Amino acid sequence: MAQNEFAIIQQYFADVGKPGDNTVLAIGDDAAVVEVPPGFQQVVSMDTLIEGAHFTLDTNPEDIAHKALAVNLSDLAAMAAAPNWFLMSLSLPEVDEQWLQRFSTGLKHTAERYSVQLIGGDTCRSKLSISIQIAGLVPSGQYVSRAGASPGDLVLVSGLLGNAGLGLASRQGRVELPEGLRLRCLQALDRPQPRLELVAFLRSFASAAIDISDGLQGDLAHILKASQCGATLDRSSLPVDPWIVQQDLYHYALAAGDDYEICCTVPPQYRAEIDAWNQQHEDCRLTIIGEITSSGFYLKVGDDQIDLASKGGYRHFD
Amino acid sequence: MAQNEFAIIQQYFADVGKPGDNTVLAIGDDAAVVEVPPGFQQVVSMDTLIEGAHFTLDTNPEDIAHKALAVNLSDLAAMAAAPNWFLMSLSLPEVDEQWLQRFSTGLKHTAERYSVQLIGGDTCRSKLSISIQIAGLVPSGQYVSRAGASPGDLVLVSGLLGNAGLGLASRQGRVELPEGLRLRCLQALDRPQPRLELVAFLRSFASAAIDISDGLQGDLAHILKASQCGATLDRSSLPVDPWIVQQDLYHYALAAGDDYEICCTVPPQYRAEIDAWNQQHEDCRLTIIGEITSSGFYLKVGDDQIDLASKGGYRHFD
Repeated sequence: MAQNEFAIIQQYFADVGKPGDNTVLAIGDDAAVVEVPPGFQQVVSMDTLIEGAHFTLDTNPEDIAHKALAVNLSDLAAMAAAPNWFLMSLSLPEVDEQWLQRFSTGLKHTAERYSVQLIGGDTCRSKLSISIQIAGLVPSGQYVSRAGASPGDLVLVSGLLGNAGLGLASRQGRVELPEGLRLRCLQALDRPQPRLELVAFLRSFASAAIDISDGLQGDLAHILKASQCGATLDRSSLPVDPWIVQQDLYHYALAAGDDYEICCTVPPQYRAEIDAWNQQHEDCRLTIIGEITSSGFYLKVGDDQIDLASKGGYRHFD
Repeated sequence: MAQNEFAIIQQYFADVGKPGDNTVLAIGDDAAVVEVPPGFQQVVSMDTLIEGAHFTLDTNPEDIAHKALAVNLSDLAAMAAAPNWFLMSLSLPEVDEQWLQRFSTGLKHTAERYSVQLIGGDTCRSKLSISIQIAGLVPSGQYVSRAGASPGDLVLVSGLLGNAGLGLASRQGRVELPEGLRLRCLQALDRPQPRLELVAFLRSFASAAIDISDGLQGDLAHILKASQCGATLDRSSLPVDPWIVQQDLYHYALAAGDDYEICCTVPPQYRAEIDAWNQQHEDCRLTIIGEITSSGFYLKVGDDQIDLASKGGYRHFD
């Protein structure tokens, strides 16, 4: 794609996101040049979406662009970092101008909404895949990692769990959903919303955090491993659509992925701050789903306890 | 690859390159955390190598790893930045432990040699491709971009031009090379050496720089466009293997790519510094190949002048 690479970048990607104060040199040289202001650390992450594995060719180009950027923004949210800039490597099987126009529109929309600028990258000709490397800023020492949870901390999740997994199952014909729910679930799958509104809350109150990309069970296990502790969750507390309760399909909430909600742990003395958050953030409520313990990983179901630490403790999704 | 992803990262990629002073948190969380010391700017770039387009499946895994990192290091060299850290997104068609072991060994070797640490990334299952995002540091304001060349500046290139292109042509059976030259050309193709030794020279003396990935003609044209000036080169000055002169195969030096040498422009008052450099750097000599002019892009061949600005001005390689 050497011949067209520069033209493609100029036409579709030279103007994605507003220039930030920290960008010295953006697209158009061997590399971009950025500043990190005194007193800040930079948080960097990289995630790739590949046709076949993460989306199908008939997915809206706008949605592909949104999701490729959103899953990276979600990693920043989980570290309590504010988005700054990103680089993108785009592989395309052919130069389809209509597809590029729609992909570029979707990318611009999401980049502007979350105040992040595309400052470089490359394009090549291959199977469709989008690799994005993102960088954010956090006041020095205020990032939130997976290590830091202590026994007694509350376990919280944002939003609803399981809808993205249901959306995928519905699209693949593995489940039949009521029409309204089906649309909400496809929306959750195709247009995940990175929870950047939580950044300030996490910096102030969270002891550990992760974004839920592989399912609550697996992702919380990463926090437990990094923090060297355990947890007990209460199934009846899980924030799920009522239909999941009715149909007893909790495994979508526990072991399906793609929710991109934030799971975090918060010391119990901040209960009032959690309540205050929820009163002010109807669209990004935090639900207490359990507690950090010294060891073990359990789910309370009525009077029973399921061992989530044993492999396949909860019914695995795939 | 969700099941094996964490194991693969832990086994093969947790320990690539030595931790730098500026790395706060490396592999193992949602994102890595880095510092940029006061008085420095960060230079960031991203390049992808894809099987089929950039290498074949029978290429040594060590060489693939080296080249994937080297082409990114070369972008830093062209900006006069010192390497700091990198992220990698690795797509694999299957989990081949022997291949991974060799790839990892090659990556570690090159990362240590150039003092750069792998601090994060992801793996997924797809056609083999390696996307690397690299970051380096430069004292604030001392980066060298493509814009900055002025009429009268000397045009320089490092090393030899055309050998990588000859190596590819030889491997594809398009040219027959003498055995010694064939080995050197394959080495140039598979093991390009990023010219990081030039970083200090470029900061002190260069007005513009670029690394030669697409061929001298095309890449110097980027400098001319960004600097709004022209150039006249002298074909007899091009640093090439004597065989290229004998066979009149200069197009490999002008229009083949993959050399990863540095092309830079230097004001003429620094001729003595160029000579001093060459006396001390036998392995990375700088050759003066022409001069920046106010407009036009020409190659002197004896008493003739070839117009390099017209499309296909020199015989195109592919």
